[in-house]
Amino acid sequence: MAERVGFIGLGVMGAPMAENLLKKGFAVTVSNRSRGAFARFIEMGASAVETPAEVAAVSDVVVTILPDTPDVDAVYFAENGLFSAVRPGMLFIDMSTASPEIAHKIHAAAVEKGADSLDAPVSGGDVGAREGTLSIMVGGSEHGFERALPVLQAMGKNIVRIGEAGAGQVTKACNQVVVALTIEAVGEALALAAKAGVDPAKVRAALLGGFAQSRILDLHGQRALEHRYNPGFRLRLHRKDLAIALQTAEVQGVSLPNTAAVHEMMNVLIAGGHGDDDHSYLIQHLLDLAKSHIQGEQ
Amino acid sequence: MAERVGFIGLGVMGAPMAENLLKKGFAVTVSNRSRGAFARFIEMGASAVETPAEVAAVSDVVVTILPDTPDVDAVYFAENGLFSAVRPGMLFIDMSTASPEIAHKIHAAAVEKGADSLDAPVSGGDVGAREGTLSIMVGGSEHGFERALPVLQAMGKNIVRIGEAGAGQVTKACNQVVVALTIEAVGEALALAAKAGVDPAKVRAALLGGFAQSRILDLHGQRALEHRYNPGFRLRLHRKDLAIALQTAEVQGVSLPNTAAVHEMMNVLIAGGHGDDDHSYLIQHLLDLAKSHIQGEQ
Repeated sequence: MAERVGFIGLGVMGAPMAENLLKKGFAVTVSNRSRGAFARFIEMGASAVETPAEVAAVSDVVVTILPDTPDVDAVYFAENGLFSAVRPGMLFIDMSTASPEIAHKIHAAAVEKGADSLDAPVSGGDVGAREGTLSIMVGGSEHGFERALPVLQAMGKNIVRIGEAGAGQVTKACNQVVVALTIEAVGEALALAAKAGVDPAKVRAALLGGFAQSRILDLHGQRALEHRYNPGFRLRLHRKDLAIALQTAEVQGVSLPNTAAVHEMMNVLIAGGHGDDDHSYLIQHLLDLAKSHIQGEQ
Repeated sequence: MAERVGFIGLGVMGAPMAENLLKKGFAVTVSNRSRGAFARFIEMGASAVETPAEVAAVSDVVVTILPDTPDVDAVYFAENGLFSAVRPGMLFIDMSTASPEIAHKIHAAAVEKGADSLDAPVSGGDVGAREGTLSIMVGGSEHGFERALPVLQAMGKNIVRIGEAGAGQVTKACNQVVVALTIEAVGEALALAAKAGVDPAKVRAALLGGFAQSRILDLHGQRALEHRYNPGFRLRLHRKDLAIALQTAEVQGVSLPNTAAVHEMMNVLIAGGHGDDDHSYLIQHLLDLAKSHIQGEQ
């Protein structure tokens, strides 16, 4: 018999992910404070309840995808949270980008009750969520991973078990570090080119043909050339992810000097009102610092 | 009639490049302090003379590829340098990675004598030099570029005119900034993963499937997993290139904060005896700082 799936977090990412579960024939129970999303999901055939505890009570597998670590903590551990209704044999899948610590906390609590949990953060953005093509980085037991696969395959394509509990969140933190630092690198290069009077479009094209190639140089380099900073992935969310990386680094005793520098640049940009711009706005920031300008399409 | 080509700088890069010119049937005159390389090139059919001035006297086009900006300055402007024998109509192609300033200085001196010049730094390493597949980033006149193309095509594949004199060197500086900062980014991510007990090989593989993808993550990420730091591209040469980028940034009024930070890390590594290791040793440095270790193949 197919698992009954509970789903909490019908946001920009969660809503299309839950929709994909319904389309694949899963029986889905949702809970959300937003009455609008609620009504839509009932029309699509979902069951709707009020609290996380009520979701847990009628589900075998519960998927959560929430904005930040404190939200995850509340949904699992607060009064009427998921763990107030946990039963042996349940599987919790937290797909939020949150700290490795909360993943460990959930896992310990689940195991204590004879349940299981996975941390399974995603990348691929709202487009990947709608198209069911998210990359999913999973931490947790081999057995839990196998059991979760049909559910995860309804929402994503590149689904990899990295290691034990927390490994998914560590991998996502690594991903966000590399993405942020690569955006910054492209920003330094394009600022240098523009200020030195060399066409950044030609520099981008030349660099894409060689060792400096990256998806960021390709896609976000093009964004900067077109001054196109609508999200995409909001800068304030990327700052949140770097904060998770820096906090994890502090706990683990790892030095992330350039991550710290880019986190600081993001602080400046968010204070300046750019938190809801795409994270590629970091490139514009470096161009602005140099008072250098990319000519062309605006 | 084919151009007579002079070639100065028979080093790790220059020797195979000059060899490719000979193979394509160019009449090549070489000059080099190294008697060993000298003899080999005479066997292959090159003419040999003593000084840069003597090379210029018997050549229509002169290619130079030298370790650093001061070497370039000496070969062009010292006593018995190229410019002591310049004739109208000559074309100079400096393929060294050097400062945009020296490119401008050569160009001004060439134009004053009715000659022309291109700055045409390369990427692709000694493998690209041997196989004739170098990427070549060219600054200078359209006319000079067209004239140089048959010569450049004997040595490279991806040959792009970026802009006027100096634009090739600016582009190369941008390339070296992006490469260095991407290596550092990969280093921070793999150090975080390793110290947090997550398999860096799996993190690399997962990140390659998404937005964090880069050639550096692919190739140098793999080097770090195998602890394989034989050059490749020597760390001390990359530091030299970052010094060019930082000096150009200072002249132009551009802030390159993470380039400055990585230059500083390279100073530490070179002081520690790693100047002749591959530049990917920067990843090992960040692993060492965290006292984190990649298990596996040694």
